[in-house]
Amino acid sequence: LNPFQWSVRVYYEDTDAGGVVYHTGYIRFMERARTEWLRARGYSQAQLIQNEGLLFSVVNLEINYLKPARLDDLLSVNSTAQVSGGASVYFEQEIYRDADGQPLARARIRVACLDAATLKPKRIPVTLREALI
Amino acid sequence: LNPFQWSVRVYYEDTDAGGVVYHTGYIRFMERARTEWLRARGYSQAQLIQNEGLLFSVVNLEINYLKPARLDDLLSVNSTAQVSGGASVYFEQEIYRDADGQPLARARIRVACLDAATLKPKRIPVTLREALI
Amino acid sequence: LNPFQWSVRVYYEDTDAGGVVYHTGYIRFMERARTEWLRARGYSQAQLIQNEGLLFSVVNLEINYLKPARLDDLLSVNSTAQVSGGASVYFEQEIYRDADGQPLARARIRVACLDAATLKPKRIPVTLREALI
Amino acid sequence: LNPFQWSVRVYYEDTDAGGVVYHTGYIRFMERARTEWLRARGYSQAQLIQNEGLLFSVVNLEINYLKPARLDDLLSVNSTAQVSGGASVYFEQEIYRDADGQPLARARIRVACLDAATLKPKRIPVTLREALI
Repeated sequence: LNPFQWSVRVYYEDTDAGGVVYHTGYIRFMERARTEWLRARGYSQAQLIQNEGLLFSVVNLEINYLKPARLDDLLSVNSTAQVSGGASVYFEQEIYRDADGQPLARARIRVACLDAATLKPKRIPVTLREALI
Repeated sequence: LNPFQWSVRVYYEDTDAGGVVYHTGYIRFMERARTEWLRARGYSQAQLIQNEGLLFSVVNLEINYLKPARLDDLLSVNSTAQVSGGASVYFEQEIYRDADGQPLARARIRVACLDAATLKPKRIPVTLREALI
Repeated sequence: LNPFQWSVRVYYEDTDAGGVVYHTGYIRFMERARTEWLRARGYSQAQLIQNEGLLFSVVNLEINYLKPARLDDLLSVNSTAQVSGGASVYFEQEIYRDADGQPLARARIRVACLDAATLKPKRIPVTLREALI
Repeated sequence: LNPFQWSVRVYYEDTDAGGVVYHTGYIRFMERARTEWLRARGYSQAQLIQNEGLLFSVVNLEINYLKPARLDDLLSVNSTAQVSGGASVYFEQEIYRDADGQPLARARIRVACLDAATLKPKRIPVTLREALI
């Protein structure tokens, strides 16, 4: 199974005074990749809120920082997902730099399906679940 | 009339690879100061949405960047406001560095009162208007 | 003369509790577009710092917010630039929503060429200047 | 041993279209608290870069999101640190809401001392180490 790949460019807004991407930048890039992974399966987060009354929310995240990304770097985010029987999706995501293929950060993220109004866990609807697998 | 003063500390998250505060950082600091100006008059933005169904939104902003702020700098934001008869509040805001008194950025900002549901302009309610003047 | 066009997708990180893009988001999107305008002319900001010892920094910015962008919107940023004889580049930039062609924000931005070490104004080198015009 | 406590207010910039603090916001708040923990021991990050040529960088982070924070919430970040014999500091940090005492997020973070020029691991100098314990 091939991971889903998404490209991200590093801009000034992503860097800090250490000259590298600020540590939450990688986590934002991973969220963009998960959003595009979802879109590639036919769903947008805005539609999920409006049409299904649900949203996905990170409940647990573990990330290892391996090497820093720098201004103007072109990065790739590789994402693989495992959809649980219930209300969770488990992602493994890796960011690497295109120019030298160096892995920069790796994360394991658990995302929960929530009712958009109450923010309580909600079973992933069957149609959505089948689209995601 | 004394301006309303609010302190802000510069953290890594606010800086960029140029070693200084990223240019939108000053604008975020000014928004914090407007929020605290409002709170000092007895209103929070969360309450305004829930209880009055209104929110304040920036419609026009002009900012001059004079000198850069750096990591760990302690800054002050001075704010003066003029409440219009209708749906707008006009702010003049200045950020300066506490250590040397240097002015770093000056802005003129027009904020509009909007209906929180429709995002259309809404006359500032009289009670709120009197509290703000 | 055609403006330089750059696409931006709105992610959760760009939005706020008002349900729309936070007001500094549009300004960050415009900076991405200026960076890509520069790259399309053969220069990256990282290279300019390392090879030429210079960086571009916003000195003045005026922005009008017309309509809000929302989660998952695909936006276009149109940029036109005028390079001065000295140390400044003047940009006019407009963001509009692809789906309905609505203009969302318009800005005039003056960017100065600075010495990367001293952060003092520096005349734009002739080779760079010719590439930018 | 009492944890180090630091207060953070939630502003619009910290929230997202889900109506709550965006998931990297809690991680930024924790970094502010670590910076203030350092300052309370007599050191600033800017001084460490300039005077000692070193900086602290996150190498591993695990966070659990328990409940969402909302606009205008006043939060407290509790931090406890363990300084290793070598180049690492291990933090346990918890964010809770002042109004109801609810814990919102808990994290374990490993921060490494790096040479500011090479970004390679560097043993924490003895004087600094003694100040941190």
